[in-house]
Amino acid sequence: MATFGLIDYDAASPEVRAIYDDIMATRHTDWINNFWKALAHDPVHLQRTWDSLKAVMAPGALDPLTKELIYVAVSVTNGCAYCIASHTVAARQAGMSAAMFAELMAVVGMANTTNRLAHGYQVAIDDRFRTPAPAVGNHGEPPVAAGGRKAAQTRAAASVKRATASGAAPPAAGQATRRRRR
Amino acid sequence: MATFGLIDYDAASPEVRAIYDDIMATRHTDWINNFWKALAHDPVHLQRTWDSLKAVMAPGALDPLTKELIYVAVSVTNGCAYCIASHTVAARQAGMSAAMFAELMAVVGMANTTNRLAHGYQVAIDDRFRTPAPAVGNHGEPPVAAGGRKAAQTRAAASVKRATASGAAPPAAGQATRRRRR
Amino acid sequence: MATFGLIDYDAASPEVRAIYDDIMATRHTDWINNFWKALAHDPVHLQRTWDSLKAVMAPGALDPLTKELIYVAVSVTNGCAYCIASHTVAARQAGMSAAMFAELMAVVGMANTTNRLAHGYQVAIDDRFRTPAPAVGNHGEPPVAAGGRKAAQTRAAASVKRATASGAAPPAAGQATRRRRR
Amino acid sequence: MATFGLIDYDAASPEVRAIYDDIMATRHTDWINNFWKALAHDPVHLQRTWDSLKAVMAPGALDPLTKELIYVAVSVTNGCAYCIASHTVAARQAGMSAAMFAELMAVVGMANTTNRLAHGYQVAIDDRFRTPAPAVGNHGEPPVAAGGRKAAQTRAAASVKRATASGAAPPAAGQATRRRRR
Amino acid sequence: MATFGLIDYDAASPEVRAIYDDIMATRHTDWINNFWKALAHDPVHLQRTWDSLKAVMAPGALDPLTKELIYVAVSVTNGCAYCIASHTVAARQAGMSAAMFAELMAVVGMANTTNRLAHGYQVAIDDRFRTPAPAVGNHGEPPVAAGGRKAAQTRAAASVKRATASGAAPPAAGQATRRRRR
Amino acid sequence: MATFGLIDYDAASPEVRAIYDDIMATRHTDWINNFWKALAHDPVHLQRTWDSLKAVMAPGALDPLTKELIYVAVSVTNGCAYCIASHTVAARQAGMSAAMFAELMAVVGMANTTNRLAHGYQVAIDDRFRTPAPAVGNHGEPPVAAGGRKAAQTRAAASVKRATASGAAPPAAGQATRRRRR
Repeated sequence: MATFGLIDYDAASPEVRAIYDDIMATRHTDWINNFWKALAHDPVHLQRTWDSLKAVMAPGALDPLTKELIYVAVSVTNGCAYCIASHTVAARQAGMSAAMFAELMAVVGMANTTNRLAHGYQVAIDDRFRTPAPAVGNHGEPPVAAGGRKAAQTRAAASVKRATASGAAPPAAGQATRRRRR
Repeated sequence: MATFGLIDYDAASPEVRAIYDDIMATRHTDWINNFWKALAHDPVHLQRTWDSLKAVMAPGALDPLTKELIYVAVSVTNGCAYCIASHTVAARQAGMSAAMFAELMAVVGMANTTNRLAHGYQVAIDDRFRTPAPAVGNHGEPPVAAGGRKAAQTRAAASVKRATASGAAPPAAGQATRRRRR
Repeated sequence: MATFGLIDYDAASPEVRAIYDDIMATRHTDWINNFWKALAHDPVHLQRTWDSLKAVMAPGALDPLTKELIYVAVSVTNGCAYCIASHTVAARQAGMSAAMFAELMAVVGMANTTNRLAHGYQVAIDDRFRTPAPAVGNHGEPPVAAGGRKAAQTRAAASVKRATASGAAPPAAGQATRRRRR
Repeated sequence: MATFGLIDYDAASPEVRAIYDDIMATRHTDWINNFWKALAHDPVHLQRTWDSLKAVMAPGALDPLTKELIYVAVSVTNGCAYCIASHTVAARQAGMSAAMFAELMAVVGMANTTNRLAHGYQVAIDDRFRTPAPAVGNHGEPPVAAGGRKAAQTRAAASVKRATASGAAPPAAGQATRRRRR
Repeated sequence: MATFGLIDYDAASPEVRAIYDDIMATRHTDWINNFWKALAHDPVHLQRTWDSLKAVMAPGALDPLTKELIYVAVSVTNGCAYCIASHTVAARQAGMSAAMFAELMAVVGMANTTNRLAHGYQVAIDDRFRTPAPAVGNHGEPPVAAGGRKAAQTRAAASVKRATASGAAPPAAGQATRRRRR
Repeated sequence: MATFGLIDYDAASPEVRAIYDDIMATRHTDWINNFWKALAHDPVHLQRTWDSLKAVMAPGALDPLTKELIYVAVSVTNGCAYCIASHTVAARQAGMSAAMFAELMAVVGMANTTNRLAHGYQVAIDDRFRTPAPAVGNHGEPPVAAGGRKAAQTRAAASVKRATASGAAPPAAGQATRRRRR
């Protein structure tokens, strides 16, 4: 069911069929899910939405699996049943294991709790968290403005730093300089 | 500022100091951010929250960077200024580059749009998205119940499948068997 | 289904029937939808809710169609399936065309994205956006406090200025005075 | 303040300056607000976001004022301080009077209440609200797919039906045929 | 600061002063907080909002402290800084202790987590949770429709059952009849 | 239905059965609802979630009924159908009457409205609401840090102050000292 009904491939206009074809080709599949069939009543919006989604979800500095995990995290937080169902399948196709899903849910649940605790306790933001990040990021890679999209740093390279990080709030920039506890 | 004020290390009780010490040791840092100082009025809740966070954010089937990206995605969706500030710093410490942040924001923005479009167009969930996933996941790894936490599959292994996935709704299980378009 | 069941007209108390009658008379219809039947277990709350809704949705400075579009926008953002279904029908009865619905969805989707980008990029509010608006509005109409409800300015009059506005962030007050770009 | 700082016009790359110029030209203004300066670190995302916003907010079946009112309604529901501030100014520039703003807030407040009441009372959706709308809308205008964007129906034409509509849930399609109350 | 500025008592119209006086009298205080001063530009909306709030928060089947705790819980979940600040003070005036606040935050945090887990794991609602509650409630008190407001059952009476309840999902109606585990 | 299916008692591993047994024993019931069966694929997360929920919902400074009312308020605000269904039953088991439920819904609806009005009118927080609360609370009870959990103050004691409080924004600390209206 959908507000203005669903437009199947056979009933679609040539311009809509062209979009459907691109969706199926991009996803290496042979069917169109209801989301697109519902939007098809407005080919202009359908085209804009698909073009943006295709560009946003394409491999870049973040791989498709990571992007799908983020998509599920947002959909779960918003309580969107349709998107949770579709992107959970998408994430699994992208390589999400049962163990990864379980951890994803644990992180999403944890974040939804601490988000409210921070609000509820009216916690002021620490000055150390207000420092703007250098435009070039913190790995010396070229700024995104300079075509960072193409120069995708490898996850491996990034992994070097990762080992040292865990827990909710991180050591802030300049933490290296020892300081008396207060 | 915080509802019941902030409890600094020097003013903290021995049990609270022990938690502060564990937080700093776990994060390889020498300071405690306001979030914990605000919760410290209730050591029991402080302990439970920190223990859960420490366990949830520890490396497992998902690496710390991926977990921080998910944490930021949820915090941004909920509009929690404190958590956005603290976890953006945490994500950068875990290896998030400027390019990764830009793509994270793009995915979060996209998901927040399609979540609403799916609601607004009252799109029914496709039957193919309703199929429950096999308990063992889709990589043949042992179920989480059987200690999957320890047997963390490598990202590399997962990456093999990733290349084929992109776009919002994925090919559903069993897509391999060709089917006439409808 | 509803938490305490639904109270149909025939089973309703005289006071509830009186409210049902007013709802049907106000809407020029001959049935009561489930929302009111579910609230009917508490006639006091039912009366207060209906009175407020009737007053809020009545034609005023904004016409019924515009109010229904706003109602749908909020319901979609909150993901309330019931309200999306009922108010989409209400909006269509008020004159919403398929083209208007498509644009409504596009704006709602866009706003949900930029809301998150503004949060995620931790964008500070521009000083120009902080200037309080003059109590009399910016069209010299009498303040609401002075019975503005009655003196509803025509959409036509308002339309004069509209043509010049588009895009997300508008020229701020005093934009007329040219200024060097910075 | 912003996560990666703000990029002013003078410090912007040629491609970013071109986008800034288009934003100012489209809005008939001479300044760029912080939102765009924060996104400028990722010209690709900046371009995509601006292009979508420009297209979505352009006059169509809905006028700019109505679109800004919807934008404010969504931003208020999401609690996005930045977007509330910027789009309230945008709405006023588009013709929103103090009376319109007051009614906008009343509708947004009302919708946020009934959204929760519908959830809380676990109200099932009435069958009459499930009927999909005809693809051609309910005014006999050509479907959006057939270039409805261009053939923007006049508000005046739509207004004819509006006078009869008010209240939350509307008479459903086919209400004309009288029916015994049940 | 507020969109149309704040209207102080001395600058208020007679009708607005009358509302201010009722607010201060009802609250046994001598000042008006910004929320009301911001709404005062629309006396009609101000009156409706205050009348509803006054009626809703008055002692009834739930005492003022319980109502304030609920108000804070909702405000924290929505991330409304203003309402969190004002209602936390209101709750404390109504008798909320530091221990009660800590437990309130813990429950709010927990609910925000399980809400997402239920969404994320796509958990179907158990049939036992779908049974509508008897209109007369489960204490044999007269239905609200029959003036239950006046016949407010005492907390003491309600407390009898409370001792046996704890944990998230309760034994469903008819649990008494033993059943084989499945 | 659930993402990875539901694990019934008979099919559960010994460690999962032990958790199921504790859930049933704690709740004095003989069945396990779907929520836990869906989480059971990850015994570690299941254990952590149940342990936290059990501790958070146990009687303390707030009684089980009050905690369930708060749980429903959050679930309704988040629009979580599963949690609304399960915790409404839980609240009724804990003693919630039809009248209490009606008032709960009224407060939740009211809070969701004023939360948006405060955002929409961009109301600045009054200085009086910013004063941090004394760590020992406002009843002279020992701070939570000093084992307040055990020394649960009686509701009766708290009730003394309650009678004087109602309405949204409370008299602020120090209101006693009379002040000229401004």
